[in-house]
Amino acid sequence: MDDCTLPVLNTGLRGIDVASSKICDVRGKEGKLIYRGFLIEDLATSSTFEETCFLLLYERLPKAKELNDFKQSLTSKRNIPKNIYTILKTLPPDMNPMDVLQMTTPLLIQNDPHAGKPEMEHVLFSAENMLSGIATITAAWDRIRNKKDVVEPDASLDHAANFLYMLNGAKPDEETAHFFDTGLLLHAEHSFNASTFTARQVASTRAHIYAAISSAIGSLSGALHGGANVRVMQMLKEIGSVDKIDGYINNILDSGGLIMGLGHAVYQTDDPRAIILKPMSKRMGELSGQTQWYKLTKALEIKGKAAFKAKKNRDIFCNVDFYSASLFYAMGIATDLFSPLFAISRVSGWAAHVIEEQFAMAAPKPSLYRPGAEYVGDYCGPDECIFLDIEDR
Amino acid sequence: MDDCTLPVLNTGLRGIDVASSKICDVRGKEGKLIYRGFLIEDLATSSTFEETCFLLLYERLPKAKELNDFKQSLTSKRNIPKNIYTILKTLPPDMNPMDVLQMTTPLLIQNDPHAGKPEMEHVLFSAENMLSGIATITAAWDRIRNKKDVVEPDASLDHAANFLYMLNGAKPDEETAHFFDTGLLLHAEHSFNASTFTARQVASTRAHIYAAISSAIGSLSGALHGGANVRVMQMLKEIGSVDKIDGYINNILDSGGLIMGLGHAVYQTDDPRAIILKPMSKRMGELSGQTQWYKLTKALEIKGKAAFKAKKNRDIFCNVDFYSASLFYAMGIATDLFSPLFAISRVSGWAAHVIEEQFAMAAPKPSLYRPGAEYVGDYCGPDECIFLDIEDR
Repeated sequence: MDDCTLPVLNTGLRGIDVASSKICDVRGKEGKLIYRGFLIEDLATSSTFEETCFLLLYERLPKAKELNDFKQSLTSKRNIPKNIYTILKTLPPDMNPMDVLQMTTPLLIQNDPHAGKPEMEHVLFSAENMLSGIATITAAWDRIRNKKDVVEPDASLDHAANFLYMLNGAKPDEETAHFFDTGLLLHAEHSFNASTFTARQVASTRAHIYAAISSAIGSLSGALHGGANVRVMQMLKEIGSVDKIDGYINNILDSGGLIMGLGHAVYQTDDPRAIILKPMSKRMGELSGQTQWYKLTKALEIKGKAAFKAKKNRDIFCNVDFYSASLFYAMGIATDLFSPLFAISRVSGWAAHVIEEQFAMAAPKPSLYRPGAEYVGDYCGPDECIFLDIEDR
Repeated sequence: MDDCTLPVLNTGLRGIDVASSKICDVRGKEGKLIYRGFLIEDLATSSTFEETCFLLLYERLPKAKELNDFKQSLTSKRNIPKNIYTILKTLPPDMNPMDVLQMTTPLLIQNDPHAGKPEMEHVLFSAENMLSGIATITAAWDRIRNKKDVVEPDASLDHAANFLYMLNGAKPDEETAHFFDTGLLLHAEHSFNASTFTARQVASTRAHIYAAISSAIGSLSGALHGGANVRVMQMLKEIGSVDKIDGYINNILDSGGLIMGLGHAVYQTDDPRAIILKPMSKRMGELSGQTQWYKLTKALEIKGKAAFKAKKNRDIFCNVDFYSASLFYAMGIATDLFSPLFAISRVSGWAAHVIEEQFAMAAPKPSLYRPGAEYVGDYCGPDECIFLDIEDR
């Protein structure tokens, strides 16, 4: 560490570039998010979740036939191994859906004749298998825990619409399906966040992609990561109405707390995804007849930003969770499924990173992530401890 | 990165101290391994696996009553939730035991009334629940896949002996049980290796310890990490007899390959654990009547080291996997259970690291591991790509 002025130790690796990557760029100052060269605004406007998955996995946009083949491949992988249903039915209904997902994802191996083989074509097959399978598991678990019959996937529907259909048992209207599709697209990738770093690290040991994605789900389950949009919704419910906002904000800021959904480690502008989600949340409120959550969020944005500026003399900005909470809630999705939705989407980005870790990046870097640590144990002074017999301790 | 001369980018974080830790020190030059201040040789000679787990989790050696209570607590957690058996019976018998472990570990939550609560006492309970439960699952899976009846745990036996009993259906002799106990103790902890780093990273998001340990198992399943002792055994079988060693070594070294079990990223001596394992492997060969694997390993050590010195003009040393393979094999343990054995042992170290990450280290460092990456996407030149309609691509 002698020659390094960078604060690496105990910083959570903030600001330390650990690898080169062609997948995603987060330009915090400009408020730009880029997937494989494309601005998130262009993708949200012109692309779909499936096409964006192709872009992430295959490093370019597909031609018409390629996209069609890719969608057919995903559709063919929507039926999950039957024993997953058996297993889901043995679980206590209050089990956390993220635990359920982490646990059942490796079971999708059973539908993958070449799982674990190191060739890229097989890893891509596995990625597609999880893209489809994790969505089916999530919907099935929500049905089973609520004592409803499982809804089989519908091959006539695209990925987003099919998920809502499997979840609710009714086909969504076109606008809702489109908003959900865009919501998935916006969450698909975000560079080396904690869960993606977990996926890459597990993949670096040459563990197979199922192990890596299952682990990434575990990482995403943490309250500081994928749990943030859940806490935005909890906050909105706690506030309850626009007239309670001022009191809530003052309380939070006086006690040194955070307003959930405001502030981000990287963006120094509103998160470009929040800007896209905001009108979707508004319109989804109108469609569902639940306009209060959007209105509350918007008022909280205005008042929260002003109060933060007044109190701390600097600006604070919306992150992706701020408007996604009210959007998904207005779609009738249970709050504890928000993190699984994140997983359903992010599996595309995780898979792209696993592939980059195991293929593109294999040459210039050593075999696996294996950092050091500074040993600060001092139980017995500078030397080793003397092992005393148990009766002499 | 401007002021840093350390090569961080694409190095797998080798040699970069990412955190301070009181748990373990690996002193590569001296060939010393230290758990919480104690030399591994002292622990191997004077301690037991359970006592070493106490040391790792509670930061000190127990007094007699504490050790007794701790062992009783572990014994009481050996019975796993019944639906795990149901699930194991639905799995294809050729499923990789590491996939099975990664998948079933979160199910142990069902026996943990306070799983996921942030207080340290609850996290310690969860750690003990996995220490016992993962051993039971591993043994049960091996029985079930081989169409044998599951053997219930025996509360009169210590951890190591009980595992061999649940695995084989017969109580081990004292010497075998002792060797297995020492084998577990030697694998319990090794600082920031890949799987431990995974566990810490998942824990840093405030995911619960089950998510972190399940992910660590995924990381350990990689061929470059926990799979190494499996490959040592495969190599021994491939060589087959002492007279084939010279040809094998020449082939490997001429083709730029590695002799499995020789060489380590950190130790510049024989791994202190290998030195302890060697006589155990010899004696276990005698006990089991299978002396050939120890003899082969020992001859390979002598010839391999000499050939490496002659060819590359530097020394190479035994790592922990070199003699553990023949030891476990002589105990009659299936080769594909070697990595699960590693997990059964290392869960103690992982748990200690999760606790350190979530408690001791919480104050001085930010919330989670979130490194950066250097974006090298160049699909469309220096600027963003233009999104073309699908028919124009």
